[in-house]
Amino acid sequence: MTTASAVRAALKGQQIETPSWAYGNSGTRFKVFAQQGVPRDPFEKIADAAQVHAFTGVAPTVSLHIPWDKVADYAALAKHAADLGVRIGAINANVFQDDDYMLGSVTNPDPRIRRKAVDHLLECVDVMDGTGSRDLKLWFSDGTNYPGQDDIRARQDRLAEALAEVYARLTGEQRLILEYKFFEPAFYTTDVPDWGTAYAHCLKLGERAKVVVDTGHHAPGTNIEFIVAFLLREGKLGAFDFNSRFYADDDLMVGAADPFQLFRIMHEVVRGGGLDPASEVAFMLDQCHNIEPKIPGQIRSVMNVQEATAKALLVDADALAAAQRAGDVLGANAVLMDAYNTDVRALLAELRDEAGLAPDPMAAYARSGYAERIKAERVGGTQAGWGA
Amino acid sequence: MTTASAVRAALKGQQIETPSWAYGNSGTRFKVFAQQGVPRDPFEKIADAAQVHAFTGVAPTVSLHIPWDKVADYAALAKHAADLGVRIGAINANVFQDDDYMLGSVTNPDPRIRRKAVDHLLECVDVMDGTGSRDLKLWFSDGTNYPGQDDIRARQDRLAEALAEVYARLTGEQRLILEYKFFEPAFYTTDVPDWGTAYAHCLKLGERAKVVVDTGHHAPGTNIEFIVAFLLREGKLGAFDFNSRFYADDDLMVGAADPFQLFRIMHEVVRGGGLDPASEVAFMLDQCHNIEPKIPGQIRSVMNVQEATAKALLVDADALAAAQRAGDVLGANAVLMDAYNTDVRALLAELRDEAGLAPDPMAAYARSGYAERIKAERVGGTQAGWGA
Amino acid sequence: MTTASAVRAALKGQQIETPSWAYGNSGTRFKVFAQQGVPRDPFEKIADAAQVHAFTGVAPTVSLHIPWDKVADYAALAKHAADLGVRIGAINANVFQDDDYMLGSVTNPDPRIRRKAVDHLLECVDVMDGTGSRDLKLWFSDGTNYPGQDDIRARQDRLAEALAEVYARLTGEQRLILEYKFFEPAFYTTDVPDWGTAYAHCLKLGERAKVVVDTGHHAPGTNIEFIVAFLLREGKLGAFDFNSRFYADDDLMVGAADPFQLFRIMHEVVRGGGLDPASEVAFMLDQCHNIEPKIPGQIRSVMNVQEATAKALLVDADALAAAQRAGDVLGANAVLMDAYNTDVRALLAELRDEAGLAPDPMAAYARSGYAERIKAERVGGTQAGWGA
Amino acid sequence: MTTASAVRAALKGQQIETPSWAYGNSGTRFKVFAQQGVPRDPFEKIADAAQVHAFTGVAPTVSLHIPWDKVADYAALAKHAADLGVRIGAINANVFQDDDYMLGSVTNPDPRIRRKAVDHLLECVDVMDGTGSRDLKLWFSDGTNYPGQDDIRARQDRLAEALAEVYARLTGEQRLILEYKFFEPAFYTTDVPDWGTAYAHCLKLGERAKVVVDTGHHAPGTNIEFIVAFLLREGKLGAFDFNSRFYADDDLMVGAADPFQLFRIMHEVVRGGGLDPASEVAFMLDQCHNIEPKIPGQIRSVMNVQEATAKALLVDADALAAAQRAGDVLGANAVLMDAYNTDVRALLAELRDEAGLAPDPMAAYARSGYAERIKAERVGGTQAGWGA
Repeated sequence: MTTASAVRAALKGQQIETPSWAYGNSGTRFKVFAQQGVPRDPFEKIADAAQVHAFTGVAPTVSLHIPWDKVADYAALAKHAADLGVRIGAINANVFQDDDYMLGSVTNPDPRIRRKAVDHLLECVDVMDGTGSRDLKLWFSDGTNYPGQDDIRARQDRLAEALAEVYARLTGEQRLILEYKFFEPAFYTTDVPDWGTAYAHCLKLGERAKVVVDTGHHAPGTNIEFIVAFLLREGKLGAFDFNSRFYADDDLMVGAADPFQLFRIMHEVVRGGGLDPASEVAFMLDQCHNIEPKIPGQIRSVMNVQEATAKALLVDADALAAAQRAGDVLGANAVLMDAYNTDVRALLAELRDEAGLAPDPMAAYARSGYAERIKAERVGGTQAGWGA
Repeated sequence: MTTASAVRAALKGQQIETPSWAYGNSGTRFKVFAQQGVPRDPFEKIADAAQVHAFTGVAPTVSLHIPWDKVADYAALAKHAADLGVRIGAINANVFQDDDYMLGSVTNPDPRIRRKAVDHLLECVDVMDGTGSRDLKLWFSDGTNYPGQDDIRARQDRLAEALAEVYARLTGEQRLILEYKFFEPAFYTTDVPDWGTAYAHCLKLGERAKVVVDTGHHAPGTNIEFIVAFLLREGKLGAFDFNSRFYADDDLMVGAADPFQLFRIMHEVVRGGGLDPASEVAFMLDQCHNIEPKIPGQIRSVMNVQEATAKALLVDADALAAAQRAGDVLGANAVLMDAYNTDVRALLAELRDEAGLAPDPMAAYARSGYAERIKAERVGGTQAGWGA
Repeated sequence: MTTASAVRAALKGQQIETPSWAYGNSGTRFKVFAQQGVPRDPFEKIADAAQVHAFTGVAPTVSLHIPWDKVADYAALAKHAADLGVRIGAINANVFQDDDYMLGSVTNPDPRIRRKAVDHLLECVDVMDGTGSRDLKLWFSDGTNYPGQDDIRARQDRLAEALAEVYARLTGEQRLILEYKFFEPAFYTTDVPDWGTAYAHCLKLGERAKVVVDTGHHAPGTNIEFIVAFLLREGKLGAFDFNSRFYADDDLMVGAADPFQLFRIMHEVVRGGGLDPASEVAFMLDQCHNIEPKIPGQIRSVMNVQEATAKALLVDADALAAAQRAGDVLGANAVLMDAYNTDVRALLAELRDEAGLAPDPMAAYARSGYAERIKAERVGGTQAGWGA
Repeated sequence: MTTASAVRAALKGQQIETPSWAYGNSGTRFKVFAQQGVPRDPFEKIADAAQVHAFTGVAPTVSLHIPWDKVADYAALAKHAADLGVRIGAINANVFQDDDYMLGSVTNPDPRIRRKAVDHLLECVDVMDGTGSRDLKLWFSDGTNYPGQDDIRARQDRLAEALAEVYARLTGEQRLILEYKFFEPAFYTTDVPDWGTAYAHCLKLGERAKVVVDTGHHAPGTNIEFIVAFLLREGKLGAFDFNSRFYADDDLMVGAADPFQLFRIMHEVVRGGGLDPASEVAFMLDQCHNIEPKIPGQIRSVMNVQEATAKALLVDADALAAAQRAGDVLGANAVLMDAYNTDVRALLAELRDEAGLAPDPMAAYARSGYAERIKAERVGGTQAGWGA
């Protein structure tokens, strides 16, 4: 067992990044239900993200999505963030919303479109230079809808070529982190469909290329914590995109669908050293709130990650190892479940109190009047959204 | 085996309905890629549907979707259709795109919203009266995203009440056909998630209430032909919404993802008497074309259903029954596979030729110049789409 | 919220049935790993089941499986149980292990085999008469492995006929409870694959025919609590077969794979009145322990059901309903999660203490020396198992 | 398009290996239905495999499974095979049926058991030396059933160590081919659950370590042809284990559940050069016949692979590439479907005729009287089976 003080220190040091797009409107292909008070520009998104940090104390960074968060002056945006107590985190590229990308971006059969897509990725590295971001997060919607539509193998060649060019452009501590997704929006093949594909490409790129595990991007039944443990062992786990789902990729709040799974994932993170800052594993939320209010949705999500982390830290590692060595199936399971079944909410409330925060972030945010204020103030203009 | 002449007669008599929304723009939550020449109003959609019938000879009706296809004068729309050689088919209600429906329509906890939703359904019956449509097709996006969000059971009470009111409004030959869907856009519970739920409600409503099987709306691995056989045995199969998918509901062309499954479904249809017009089973397409051209996408889909039907009709029913009675597993399977492995394209080409149609509908449509004409003519105005 | 005293009363009154086959050897098709001390006959199985009751206080009945638990004198067996403080529960029929059943039992194309299968079911009712059991639990492995192998619809006719004959044989309070299963051992069609099929048959049979929900028998992603809520609303939920799984039907301890799901299920049970004895919902375990010791595996499973039930009882129903009525998505979810996140282990320990039991049943059983005793005593003879 | 003569040459040169265990009894955990005439020893299994080759002409090798096929004199077994016109193929290790392996073999926490398991693997290489086999096929049932049961990461360390020792023992052309499986018999974690894990280990082992794709061993919805294309591009596709399934790993005949998928897989094999003997891709069946007769089940399976291969060879590669380059989604799909929809049975019959074989292998085998002969002769002794 980690000592009580080590548990507390680890929880105090935890950092969970929220995504700028979580604060804008989102929905399904059937309908986007607009909410009042939604940000109209990246500055307002960062203001909302700063609220999540203000009430939780563990969400000091916010990911951007280019071009959704394109601004003329990134230094000004970074300063705006700093003024509000937060920083710019990862830069997310978007090569799926231009009409040119209907049949793919970096894997498109048309070299002109591939060039355009790669140029956008390189532009994102420029943004990183401007904002001081460490991570270029790449997710490709590329794939095909019908058997025969394109050559599966040739698309891998094109992908490898594009990644190599972008990786070569990185400098210093910058990283390329590559996300995989089982399917959607491509419905037959996806060019980076699983961790194995992302891993194989990252391996060839080099040390600063790592895999992003989005918890919602797997085939039914996939054991995600196995992948986490495996990538940590290989030194190739770059980041998490946290969210949860009952079916396909649903953007539900992390921990909402299967809190036990989130705990098991965090247990492997703890086991594999992923909480150690030296591991450079980034913990990000990547989820949108279609029907629930957006800032509270992020606050609750951050709290869910905290609770799972706290439980994972409470696992009695010595007792667990002893039971495992003895082949005591029920005993080893019981050690894990004992931690999971512990109610850690009081512990986290106490830590918040020590940090000068309200013990209940949800209630404190509700009391703050921020929600009413943005509803009143953010009138006119165009609400942020995916622009699909 | 059905005699050769009976096979030909059955194929000549087949009718496959295409949906008006297949001709408009559609996409995923990530992006809708607009296509040139897309209809701007219901009249243009019907013109496109008439093309599918003109080249295949077996698609004489087109489903409407209200309010997407709302017009001031339904008689004029029906006459327009008749002038182009087609008819109005089923009326599809839409209670998922008004802001009021964020937490549900007929199952919403708010009685005002439920009233509004039911009123829309009743209005759809008015449209049926105006167009002479037989079928009111109901699909509800209603459900919840989070455990606890609403009371699962109370929502069933509300659903039952709404359905009863609408069913009571039907007259003459009109039917209420109820569609189920595994998930999406609701991500935790869906109020009509499976055939059992739809069946139970239809049973209580009465004889003119039947179940719609949408081939894309099932849990992974579900044996759809079993459901088809079961519902036919119970006299409760109302209609098909055809499409196909490799993952979740993807709107791929029917038969594109698993042509053998489509064949097995049509085999159960033939076995259960579903091709007999007296069965009143409606065969509809319900699929959108996100990256492929829309009219050819419908033509190919209609042809896929025809090919599967032809193969199903070629199954040697006597040999199959004999092998089944004998417990000859491989022999019975071989009888089925023999029909499936037969290339029926020449037979269908011959039937088209006899009907005065070009033997290859795809090539004939391409030659017709219609695609170029609508691209040139349909400039300006607003392209039809889902309006999500 | 149920008052604290009502919560305690409900928990004290809970009854969870364990299955005789859980105490014998079991495994996968790859290997059955025999354990020491396993029972050699039904009397020894009941002795083991009595241990589970002795340490938990809530497992007073044990299901039998015929012919695995066939004895010459059922009155003697019942007396043996009574002497040990337990009773005989449901009778499970077995029509899947005779060579005759290779292509099906009650749905077999061969009428002789169907007759044999139905006769076995009727014999099981005789056993019920002899043991005083209320429930005949029917699970059919019947189905097909290959398309075309048999006629899906004809098999339903045969199934309906068999069920009707058996149902007619019941007397008094006896019930026929029908289990469904997604697949296995049949690999293409299963004759009762889902709740809808079981429900439709039970509806035709009559009031004393009800559906069994085995938590491991669903397609991936199926929302089981929806089914529970639906069947309770229809008065057709007969019983649970509890177990858990990460993939297909795996016989893991209930609550081991997804404790949150078990809680959601119990929440719907509480909501729908299923804990009320008048509802006649039976709570049974149906799981085998392949690698973990068998009696502790059952004790842990019983405790898992207790903990989920306790949490479900702690849900603040008034607050939940208020949030649901208000359309407060996060608020309603929070009410549910508050109960789930509560550590109920101390409460249950207290209740055990009040009942004169050790607060920790696992530790108490380990201390009891029973495991060592049966290892020493049960030497020679043939260990009980599935006999596959 | 491959020229007609090249298509014929490729089909004549195809080699499909059948597994010795397909000829013995097999079943599910519920029941093994014994069949008459089943082999009693490895010599009789090889005799049956020789029948499959005699009637299809493309199944000249047979895989062994150690210890199921353990004999005193492997040279004698190899000579027996040669006398019957076939050869010994891959050697399959079995480290899942000894009581010691309950909690794992090469990943077991107990070093003694790991040693025993590795020794068995080394012994299998001895058998390869004795039989002249090229391939050591490794499938590990290793994994865990419960969260916490063992350390996921430590098990990878142990696995890597075991593989390295075995790989070092190989000589000459010998290969280690590593199979992955989604789940079963382990129900929580599996130590080699997906192609990514197998690939990562093979990469570290070296050039003679390659991945085995078992078509039944994937999560629902997995795009297997993508994996095939990817591994071929990486030079890491070692072999196929062919079979098919509707649900989990079901051992149905390859091509029986989804013939279109098999075609798509063979299309990627053709595209990626996998039919070229220099690629060293082995095509093996790995399936058991639970309810269908075993030799005909293998013959039909071999024919199914042949038919899928023939269709894949008929794809007009130039037309396909042109449509792909042009972004013609429907056109490219149509090229593929044109080949799939072609009835290739006459072509294959013709090729058989040219090779001096009966055009219909199923009918010819049935006429041969072999089935009746082995039923009469193989009386007494113990039928081969899995011995679970």
